[in-house]
Amino acid sequence: MQIARVVGTLVSTSKHRKFEGAKLLLVQPLNADDTPRGTALLAVDGVGAGVREKVLIVLEGRAAGEAIGQKGAPVDAAIVGIVDQVYIDGSL
Amino acid sequence: MQIARVVGTLVSTSKHRKFEGAKLLLVQPLNADDTPRGTALLAVDGVGAGVREKVLIVLEGRAAGEAIGQKGAPVDAAIVGIVDQVYIDGSL
Amino acid sequence: MQIARVVGTLVSTSKHRKFEGAKLLLVQPLNADDTPRGTALLAVDGVGAGVREKVLIVLEGRAAGEAIGQKGAPVDAAIVGIVDQVYIDGSL
Amino acid sequence: MQIARVVGTLVSTSKHRKFEGAKLLLVQPLNADDTPRGTALLAVDGVGAGVREKVLIVLEGRAAGEAIGQKGAPVDAAIVGIVDQVYIDGSL
Amino acid sequence: MQIARVVGTLVSTSKHRKFEGAKLLLVQPLNADDTPRGTALLAVDGVGAGVREKVLIVLEGRAAGEAIGQKGAPVDAAIVGIVDQVYIDGSL
Repeated sequence: MQIARVVGTLVSTSKHRKFEGAKLLLVQPLNADDTPRGTALLAVDGVGAGVREKVLIVLEGRAAGEAIGQKGAPVDAAIVGIVDQVYIDGSL
Repeated sequence: MQIARVVGTLVSTSKHRKFEGAKLLLVQPLNADDTPRGTALLAVDGVGAGVREKVLIVLEGRAAGEAIGQKGAPVDAAIVGIVDQVYIDGSL
Repeated sequence: MQIARVVGTLVSTSKHRKFEGAKLLLVQPLNADDTPRGTALLAVDGVGAGVREKVLIVLEGRAAGEAIGQKGAPVDAAIVGIVDQVYIDGSL
Repeated sequence: MQIARVVGTLVSTSKHRKFEGAKLLLVQPLNADDTPRGTALLAVDGVGAGVREKVLIVLEGRAAGEAIGQKGAPVDAAIVGIVDQVYIDGSL
Repeated sequence: MQIARVVGTLVSTSKHRKFEGAKLLLVQPLNADDTPRGTALLAVDGVGAGVREKVLIVLEGRAAGEAIGQKGAPVDAAIVGIVDQVYIDGSL
């Protein structure tokens, strides 16, 4: 799993029927120091996240389908948690 | 999922029988500012997309098979939506 | 899926029993302009491809297993089509 | 699988219900000489690992779900062992 | 699949119970000219390979589980063959 920040939303009127009702959010993966890492991607929301929130994302189809309770959903990324705090061992 | 633009088509007369009837499109992944990102790839079309359209793609076999309604299809990428609009939080 | 060129073959006398009979080909992924992209890899042949042919490959275990008709095969890449022609929209 | 070091923990009060009870650890993948490789990521703990321990991680959804005994868990990485020793052939 | 060389072994006394008995080998992926490519990784041995041998590896969980005959094993890479010879078309 990775930590990311929700940075936007997407509107897609003509989408696959198994997506109906699913909320798609644009998320930016973050490094441990909260700087952006790589490119933003789209994830389905499994926990009710909002823009600017720091979230936990899974990047894999099976896991993403499970996250929104639909094994057969054609998805490859999902938000599975809101991140409250990350503790990093200062000695490392 | 990622945002991409349809940039071409592919003709393959000798292909795996489970591909018969499936439309294969060449798609170019895009960054948030619509510039190209990485290399173009081939995706099966699950929504009736056309060349130049901005689309939503899934990059994973299980999800791609679900997208075209064939769990057993030997595919690893599919178009699952037409992108109308992407809203990015300007403060980020 | 990606476009690749068959560039070689592999001989492995001591291999996993579920591989018996499967043909393994060395394929070089290509960019849209047919220049090599990244490193060559090994794919099982699902369509009867030969050296120098331009092929369509899937890069995922489930899909690769389906391509050779063996869901339980320990494979992660397969050739699923012979590429006749790729049309790229010249305006893009 | 890869070798990594546990470098932190994560608190997420609002997370997917299938995560309840699972311990999420921040792990830093390592090279063969123990230097950091790439970015830290989050893995569910399947063996009772602690901060600073050197661990074995799997990076794939199905495998990660199996590691914590929940096939349907929305996870894509898991800790599956504590590393005692790595022997590298000095002649290579 | 990729070609790799076995370069070491790993000892892990406290590992996931589904790993019991499985042999974990450190393998270094190779380019077509046998130079190292990227970082070494750990793979379960499905064919009885030894240090210094040139092997064929699969990099995917489902395939790796099949390779060692345990669908439910928490693994993401496996050795599935010993490489005897690779023939590369000299004209390419």
